[in-house]
Amino acid sequence: MTTRPHVVILGGGFGGLNAAKGLKGTPVDVTVVDRHNHHLFQPMLYQVATAALSPGDIASPIRSILRRRRNVEVLLDEATAVDTTARQVRLASGGTLAYDYLVVATGANHSYFGHDEWAPFAPGLKTIEDALEIRRRVLLAFEHAEMEPDPVARQAYLNFVIVGGGPTGVELAGALAEIKRYVLRRDFRRIDPREAIVILIEAGKRILPTYPPTLSDKAKRSLRDLGVDVRTEMTVTGIDADSVLAGGWRIPAHTIIWAAGNRASPILATLGVPLDRQGRVLVEPDCTIPGHPEVFVLGDAANFAHDPHGMLPGVCPVAMQMGTYAARVIRDAVRNRPTRRPFHYWNKGELAVIGRGRAVANIRRLRFGGFFAWLAWIFVHIFFLIGFRNRLLVMIEWAISYLTYSRGARLITGRSVDRPPTPADASA
Amino acid sequence: MTTRPHVVILGGGFGGLNAAKGLKGTPVDVTVVDRHNHHLFQPMLYQVATAALSPGDIASPIRSILRRRRNVEVLLDEATAVDTTARQVRLASGGTLAYDYLVVATGANHSYFGHDEWAPFAPGLKTIEDALEIRRRVLLAFEHAEMEPDPVARQAYLNFVIVGGGPTGVELAGALAEIKRYVLRRDFRRIDPREAIVILIEAGKRILPTYPPTLSDKAKRSLRDLGVDVRTEMTVTGIDADSVLAGGWRIPAHTIIWAAGNRASPILATLGVPLDRQGRVLVEPDCTIPGHPEVFVLGDAANFAHDPHGMLPGVCPVAMQMGTYAARVIRDAVRNRPTRRPFHYWNKGELAVIGRGRAVANIRRLRFGGFFAWLAWIFVHIFFLIGFRNRLLVMIEWAISYLTYSRGARLITGRSVDRPPTPADASA
Repeated sequence: MTTRPHVVILGGGFGGLNAAKGLKGTPVDVTVVDRHNHHLFQPMLYQVATAALSPGDIASPIRSILRRRRNVEVLLDEATAVDTTARQVRLASGGTLAYDYLVVATGANHSYFGHDEWAPFAPGLKTIEDALEIRRRVLLAFEHAEMEPDPVARQAYLNFVIVGGGPTGVELAGALAEIKRYVLRRDFRRIDPREAIVILIEAGKRILPTYPPTLSDKAKRSLRDLGVDVRTEMTVTGIDADSVLAGGWRIPAHTIIWAAGNRASPILATLGVPLDRQGRVLVEPDCTIPGHPEVFVLGDAANFAHDPHGMLPGVCPVAMQMGTYAARVIRDAVRNRPTRRPFHYWNKGELAVIGRGRAVANIRRLRFGGFFAWLAWIFVHIFFLIGFRNRLLVMIEWAISYLTYSRGARLITGRSVDRPPTPADASA
Repeated sequence: MTTRPHVVILGGGFGGLNAAKGLKGTPVDVTVVDRHNHHLFQPMLYQVATAALSPGDIASPIRSILRRRRNVEVLLDEATAVDTTARQVRLASGGTLAYDYLVVATGANHSYFGHDEWAPFAPGLKTIEDALEIRRRVLLAFEHAEMEPDPVARQAYLNFVIVGGGPTGVELAGALAEIKRYVLRRDFRRIDPREAIVILIEAGKRILPTYPPTLSDKAKRSLRDLGVDVRTEMTVTGIDADSVLAGGWRIPAHTIIWAAGNRASPILATLGVPLDRQGRVLVEPDCTIPGHPEVFVLGDAANFAHDPHGMLPGVCPVAMQMGTYAARVIRDAVRNRPTRRPFHYWNKGELAVIGRGRAVANIRRLRFGGFFAWLAWIFVHIFFLIGFRNRLLVMIEWAISYLTYSRGARLITGRSVDRPPTPADASA
């Protein structure tokens, strides 16, 4: 061991990886801790959930991404608590990790707004396991419908409800609509998959609330063209194994996906600083926590309220830029050139894809929808996808899907398939 | 419903699919029953277990493979028993299925020769779930080794034992040797993955016992070149969570893979006909069961002892040819042209791959090893891989792996990773 400053980075997502990369050539030892061995390209996770891509296409081992950074060590472990006084991180494996600088980039999980009893019936989409579970439920629903002689019970299998009209909900709804319309068209003998109904429920006034209203409208029209039933200003009040209650409606459905709320990682509560309602740390202008200029909190774990345009959204560019920023501050401090200019987010824009050839884009002053927005989405996402191999493979998979309307990863894996899913499954 | 004869096919593997395809244009209704929604290209399953390919690359939904066969219906269900008198199949979902012709192509699972207590410690390789479990254990073993300060305990994580020197065992051993040597070379900071030891244990006199002895020798030499410790005439007498007992040795190891024995599907016992020691049906020369010319048993479920060259091996070409044969017999019977010429297996040869540029081939009179055997293997396997999309993707993934020595699907998924695997994990 050297006596060089030790930088501990919690989380190998976009924020953590960029922080680790930004410390290249700096005389520090870096330890990246993540409970998964892989970095996940979360913006494309919905494509795994909807059988377009395989998990391996959008995830890369953190070790191999960082293999050439000789001052970086990767630890497969889970940080459970931070002691900011002793400057130590406690690990699930039992050990502790002392730090000189700490970067907390642990992201967020879904939140059911106090209704955790809904979780087994309405899985969210944050991890590869989540995506495979949703894929399993979606594909199984069609299988059960094919075997169900009673028309009412059959339709309940063919109703898909997505709760939450943000980018994830919109992208899922569009992909499900394409599956029922095109992908499965000829696969069944007793049901017509086009009988499936995809319902997108949003509590607010419009879907994609962080986008300009004109784009929300465009997205809504695109979804409706694809046959998605978009319902805004409708609050979900109940979810169980076979229905959703919302706005006075009871919608019979076995496949319900939660894309509505986030809750930041529980480790943040151990930092001893004020959190917002979603559990995020209210960070200083330099992304540190009050009283501890050596502790940075990034990305979805941070509530950064110092931007002139309002609170920063929970998207990867924010996390990436914060990671690069934290690395620069640490580099300057180590070299005794502390500057601490406040973090400034350079907003390059937002993109949400709805389906084949359909997307909306809000890039600086440009607001557009349709085919060109979709091309922009493909370009940006391929560009940021980690690893040459993945980029090439995903491009080919998309090209094949585009030409043939097929989805290659339509596997039901995990559990035996001789009965409908029950609450017990989800908690397994 | 029509009054056309009903053909029920149990199993969507190579035998079942070929039977279904062979009935194209025949005036029968076909129902294919499988408990998985996908056909699996089992000969390449070891590539999923060793992180070279993703599950989606080697599996396709049975429905989409058969979508254009309008007389074929696919049922996601598990057949639990056959009543040959009533001509009915009982299903796990509760229903029954009446048949005029029955094709049983349910394959085999691994067998621990009466030692089922070894199963949690030494998983076999038959399904996608098996492959992901092995991949998880292999990748986790290196992670645990990286975190283990004690050198003896560390080496136990780096010892990989494969039991069984047939093609699956040989292919797994070669792939693991390449992983430790090339793939992970630069990924770790505290361990050198090349310290890992891959041990292949075979009870018989030589590995690849169905091949000519010269090729067994070639394969052994190739494996040794790759650094695999090949041990023949060594019988495993015990397996537990941290060791293998074999031939007087105690080998400390946490990662043990079972590639030694097969046991045919349990449904065969309900047919009421004699089975061999591995649970396979002793079929007639026309692949039917004694006394029931309407019931066919194919592939790994059948013991076909009527070939002049001895018992047929459990490989896909046998299953495929039997499937095509059964379809022809049914077609002739339906058209009232019963011929029942006995099944004849056309042996096109055998191929086993050992590593990059290394394989052995036994094709009719040609017996060769090395680079050309490896090219033959790639050609044959890509050719038979189901679905255009998969073929192209796999070819690209292999090309990238060949050029970069990387493996793209190195994901640890499934369970939390903050502790070493325990017996409880495997039984979960």
